[in-house]
Amino acid sequence: MNERLWTFEGTTQAIGQFRIVDTRAIVGAGLPAAGWLRVAQGSDIAQPDGAFRLQGIVSNERYVTRPERNELVATQRLIGRPEATVGALIPIKKSAAWWSLTQDERRAVFEERSHHTALGLTALPHVARRLHHCRDLPEPADFDFLTWFDFAPEHTSLFDELLVRLRETEEWRYVEREVEIRVERVPA
Amino acid sequence: MNERLWTFEGTTQAIGQFRIVDTRAIVGAGLPAAGWLRVAQGSDIAQPDGAFRLQGIVSNERYVTRPERNELVATQRLIGRPEATVGALIPIKKSAAWWSLTQDERRAVFEERSHHTALGLTALPHVARRLHHCRDLPEPADFDFLTWFDFAPEHTSLFDELLVRLRETEEWRYVEREVEIRVERVPA
Repeated sequence: MNERLWTFEGTTQAIGQFRIVDTRAIVGAGLPAAGWLRVAQGSDIAQPDGAFRLQGIVSNERYVTRPERNELVATQRLIGRPEATVGALIPIKKSAAWWSLTQDERRAVFEERSHHTALGLTALPHVARRLHHCRDLPEPADFDFLTWFDFAPEHTSLFDELLVRLRETEEWRYVEREVEIRVERVPA
Repeated sequence: MNERLWTFEGTTQAIGQFRIVDTRAIVGAGLPAAGWLRVAQGSDIAQPDGAFRLQGIVSNERYVTRPERNELVATQRLIGRPEATVGALIPIKKSAAWWSLTQDERRAVFEERSHHTALGLTALPHVARRLHHCRDLPEPADFDFLTWFDFAPEHTSLFDELLVRLRETEEWRYVEREVEIRVERVPA
């Protein structure tokens, strides 16, 4: 199994590491209600009849330049810090119009006009993020990307503000489905 | 099944659409000898104990700009023209150094310094090409890309010349494994 593959499983019994505190359809259809979210490296699943199962794979970055990556690497934190007890899984599907753009056109929308990386940097180092790609999996996926965030509860408003600002961008006009799943870690 | 997924199967019995006329390790390890190549959309396989099985998925382009794509679209032909009775499958793996480059650095090597698309255009419309990605499949793959070409026999030297010129580029210094499988279509 490719070690960059991750599975996010919405479960109806308390077998996930996270309790789902809110699920919201932002654009398009939502996801079935689930009480817990289980996050697993690889394709391992615990509850085959669970509410939903989303998979994605961590890949090389598609847009950032060297100076942007240097700034990200200097500032970003890995998912899983002990104090990061809350988080969000945000599955997104972009439109056919997005995927028909060429690389330079997508980059221009993503950064020069929407400032995606620059906006993300405003939430660092407090909000950690891991991006997973789903569009090119052998089984067709309902989403193109799964982004997984975690942070300490006191940085919730910083994260909320980031989502508001991203959703106002030109890039987000290409989002045709988005679901926001808020979680809190189940105490060990 | 994602309809952009393709399977290339090296078979030891005459069940493929193509006869393998030559298999050559260009960089690194080769592939097991096979007599025929079967090309199937999806993950369907005919001979589970065949010599090799390679899978990849057609995806959005990662480097070309709008003017480059316009020129490609105006000139390129689809795989499968009746007169294109010969071809080649070229699986490639790039190095960790390549994958650690940022998007702007990869683009600079790919086109500004190696002229990958410009070189490819010199073989159009005679040589058709379809690129498949394998690096982000759930099962780890031995290659990052599978490129599948077909052309009429009289354009073989044009194709040979293209391979020579691409292999001289800076981009090819990042190729750590490459196999070249030449085929001819089995008469119906």
